[in-house]
Amino acid sequence: MMEEDRVVRLIQRRFAAAAPMLRLGIGDDAAVIRPRGAAELWTITTDLLIEEVDFRRAWSTPEQLGHRALAVNLSDIAAMGCRPRFYTVGLALPRDCKRGWILQFYRGMTALGRRHGAELIGGDLSRSPRGIYLSVTVLGCSVGRKLLLRSAGRPGDLLYVTGTLGQAAAGLALLERGRRRGAAARRAVEAHLRPEPRCETGLWLCRRGRASAAIDLSDGLSSDLPRLCRASGVGAEIEEAALPLFRASARWRMDPLELGLHGGDDYELLFAVPPGAAGRLERDYPADLPPVTRIGRLTARRQILLTGAATSPLEPRGYDHFAPRR
Amino acid sequence: MMEEDRVVRLIQRRFAAAAPMLRLGIGDDAAVIRPRGAAELWTITTDLLIEEVDFRRAWSTPEQLGHRALAVNLSDIAAMGCRPRFYTVGLALPRDCKRGWILQFYRGMTALGRRHGAELIGGDLSRSPRGIYLSVTVLGCSVGRKLLLRSAGRPGDLLYVTGTLGQAAAGLALLERGRRRGAAARRAVEAHLRPEPRCETGLWLCRRGRASAAIDLSDGLSSDLPRLCRASGVGAEIEEAALPLFRASARWRMDPLELGLHGGDDYELLFAVPPGAAGRLERDYPADLPPVTRIGRLTARRQILLTGAATSPLEPRGYDHFAPRR
Repeated sequence: MMEEDRVVRLIQRRFAAAAPMLRLGIGDDAAVIRPRGAAELWTITTDLLIEEVDFRRAWSTPEQLGHRALAVNLSDIAAMGCRPRFYTVGLALPRDCKRGWILQFYRGMTALGRRHGAELIGGDLSRSPRGIYLSVTVLGCSVGRKLLLRSAGRPGDLLYVTGTLGQAAAGLALLERGRRRGAAARRAVEAHLRPEPRCETGLWLCRRGRASAAIDLSDGLSSDLPRLCRASGVGAEIEEAALPLFRASARWRMDPLELGLHGGDDYELLFAVPPGAAGRLERDYPADLPPVTRIGRLTARRQILLTGAATSPLEPRGYDHFAPRR
Repeated sequence: MMEEDRVVRLIQRRFAAAAPMLRLGIGDDAAVIRPRGAAELWTITTDLLIEEVDFRRAWSTPEQLGHRALAVNLSDIAAMGCRPRFYTVGLALPRDCKRGWILQFYRGMTALGRRHGAELIGGDLSRSPRGIYLSVTVLGCSVGRKLLLRSAGRPGDLLYVTGTLGQAAAGLALLERGRRRGAAARRAVEAHLRPEPRCETGLWLCRRGRASAAIDLSDGLSSDLPRLCRASGVGAEIEEAALPLFRASARWRMDPLELGLHGGDDYELLFAVPPGAAGRLERDYPADLPPVTRIGRLTARRQILLTGAATSPLEPRGYDHFAPRR
């Protein structure tokens, strides 16, 4: 288990408690509450974006940064199968981010928000002695009372992902090398700088697709899949040959499999579907949504395996904020 | 108007929009939503606390910091006349804040939260390259459907504050001088490091006290009173002699009036009461809640005056994150 997850689990065990109207606290993509009398369930999630940790200012326009800060939170709401509704923003800015910067940031953020039906309703502005710190909190609401939880996977469920794995990580590596030319490179860089949260897919999977469990891929498949498995009390087998890898990265002497397994920031959805519902899902899944690919299945044995020419355990090697040494 | 308020207003004008279920967006102590079917109104507020801007690590224990980060947010919910229910925390920590630090931080925070009926339900943990950055978002709910808004003050309403003004600012000045001895000094330092949000008072004022408008004093009376006045479209007159100043600060060669008018971080409530309701408020106000003091009144003329031996305009001189030069 990653050190970050251990700390979160410790906080959960020591400090989380039941409360009226609380359906689900720490431990999923978002917390779930049911306001007294409310027709829907409400989900709430907070994510930080920090300069030099999560982004570099030289690589992003303020609009892109605004987009990305909201996108990573919308992705959590999408993984719950909910509709984003409202958000607040805590923005700590160094002295050289002035009015123009702030307005462009909010332009990028609110443009993404509106496309998904979410409105900016508040927040806090502060000076930062060094570096930009962003904190976004999104409130989403369920459609009906259904949700996609990390914990609802069962042995035998088939595993799917949306989109392409390792594309954003390739984009980051290209940015680090200062290279952005060519259509594939631009696509990879764009995937890193302006991720598209899978809101419509999350809603469809929850309402129509009969998905059981879901999580969004923020830290990479090898880190996020174990989180879904732990919450569901299951293991998993991933078929290496089935992974929808970003193969263009091989052109730049990167390993598409390595990036696809361990690269972060794709913000694709990983979800489980009971075997009896998989055929219908594959038949009915709308053609205008990002493609989904079956990549493996959940198992009763609590181990995460990668099957291919050989079979080996899949160790988490995604980004860990709290890893002892880096 | 403070530069920070100008930027917030610009964001509000350009990027805020009406949305279903949104009752009140940017511009008050908290935003207000009414989830479909919900019995109550829900309020949401986000506040940042930043090392070297809002606190110094050498002065606070992790518990005190956890307490304070939540307290400043609960204070916003109190100023809306609501009950805090849930909160999420974004915590960016430098490498030297380890497990023990994190657990103590949450101990301080959750102890305060529980006293006021609010539970920790989620958040995000991240490494920070330098300095601690805290972002807390609190969800509160109304009692019935009544709220205290900044905008509901009317000319003639009487103005009151809770507690003592300038005590936290005196505490901060003492900390800067490295002095904490004596009961009064300890009280002042405590007011700065562990502010007590006026949750019970806010609820009482909203339910029983027939207060019209309210705001919490985070940046100082001279900065926060104009915010209430602008929102209500009124002016105000403050009686210098009536202010509940922290007179002990004179012992340390500070000016109690200066601190009481412009000192920040008191997190007391400033509220308005229609003249017809003031007598009953003063008679019925519970003795076990922090004392309230009448300090002036709202006026039709949109000017903020300080009346005493002479009458002069009261200029905002509280902390402004975005002041052009500091």
